Amino acid sequence: MTVSLVGAGPGDPGLLTQRGAELIRQADVVVYDRLVDRRLLDLAPDGAELVDVGKAPGTSDRQSEINALLIEHGRSGRRVVRLKGGDPFVFGRGGEEAEALRQADVTFQVVPGVSSAFAVPAAAGIPVTHRGLATSVSVVTARVGDHSGSERVDWEALGRVGGTLVILMGMSERGSITAGLLAGGRPADTPVAVVHWGTTSRQRVVRATLGALASVDLPPPATIVVGSVAALDVLASGERRGR
Amino acid sequence: MTVSLVGAGPGDPGLLTQRGAELIRQADVVVYDRLVDRRLLDLAPDGAELVDVGKAPGTSDRQSEINALLIEHGRSGRRVVRLKGGDPFVFGRGGEEAEALRQADVTFQVVPGVSSAFAVPAAAGIPVTHRGLATSVSVVTARVGDHSGSERVDWEALGRVGGTLVILMGMSERGSITAGLLAGGRPADTPVAVVHWGTTSRQRVVRATLGALASVDLPPPATIVVGSVAALDVLASGERRGR
Repeated sequence: MTVSLVGAGPGDPGLLTQRGAELIRQADVVVYDRLVDRRLLDLAPDGAELVDVGKAPGTSDRQSEINALLIEHGRSGRRVVRLKGGDPFVFGRGGEEAEALRQADVTFQVVPGVSSAFAVPAAAGIPVTHRGLATSVSVVTARVGDHSGSERVDWEALGRVGGTLVILMGMSERGSITAGLLAGGRPADTPVAVVHWGTTSRQRVVRATLGALASVDLPPPATIVVGSVAALDVLASGERRGR
Repeated sequence: MTVSLVGAGPGDPGLLTQRGAELIRQADVVVYDRLVDRRLLDLAPDGAELVDVGKAPGTSDRQSEINALLIEHGRSGRRVVRLKGGDPFVFGRGGEEAEALRQADVTFQVVPGVSSAFAVPAAAGIPVTHRGLATSVSVVTARVGDHSGSERVDWEALGRVGGTLVILMGMSERGSITAGLLAGGRPADTPVAVVHWGTTSRQRVVRATLGALASVDLPPPATIVVGSVAALDVLASGERRGR
């Protein structure tokens, strides 16, 4: 296998998979994103080439350059790890990289990772599903600009579903998100949690309600959780006491 | 930390996290579910106690017994790993176990795992989100009986959302699922994929459309993916050629 698209997980290096770690240890080249923890790169052997393709927000035109880079390294026959935050196939654009490699006849594999969409709420003590509170969880990114601009998120329809809603990169859109969800029928007192830098040592959590989401002010990266489970903190005394 | 609620991932042992593996290697007791791969249990040290609490479908009243078992082992001061398929907090009832431990004053931690909800589609070559095809992914379990019977899944509302829908344990309900999604406005020609034993050597994938889902006949465990991405197989030539 020439290129491995590997999910790095949500931030905490211990949440990388065993296979992901093994592939990095054998890599000739590691192509990584901005939010990937540097301690994961330390797993690479001495002499491995480390390539930062870290996309800052708003520079999504770099995707075709990344695809070309993976193809070039893949064709050279070197063992390439493409290390992506979270899971490659969950808002990670790994599908596009896979398609580009396939079209270029470069062999590859995909190694899933722990998705931030579930692990970030968990780190704040929030199970995204919970008996009696939620039988579904929907994950959505508010940054549709990354998706060519032709798609719209139907917040009103999402509001009708109920259950748990996890919104990635949504803080700058929180006004329209709130308006849509309220229009869809979610009550203004629906619990909301905003998790900044989830799973890392910089984690901060702010609890609010849907009606008060606009007044929550945390910078990116932030994940918004909407629904009854957002009021839970099942780690509240358990985990802290253990430290 | 006395009890660790650890996500085992979707089936493939290489998808266990590094921290999960480390905790099993140090465990005095491993309490595991029916769908957990036996190779993960082999990581436990000689002499560790391995407790199968494998719930067969329809025996969900065992949850309180499992909670009591975790509390008992936790109070004995032994290092307990509670190994759960997928992620503990995504339809894993880990939230209930966490609450029971907290109420019993037993210290614990939660270690997320790779969720089957995303990794099973990935193993079939399906990215749950993909540029131009899906900006949201909703995950739902059709087995609401597990959730005390008081909750209903609103398939019609889910049908209105569009995007990708991943349905766990839904095959026995596929008639009502199809009817609800069609009523919600999803076209009958919406692509559907059914993945049996995803990520394992026993994996089988059947592609169909929403209108034809009722005629797909695969036994549990099976995951249903509904939406445009279900027609994709980004691994089609890439990964197979590499084997």
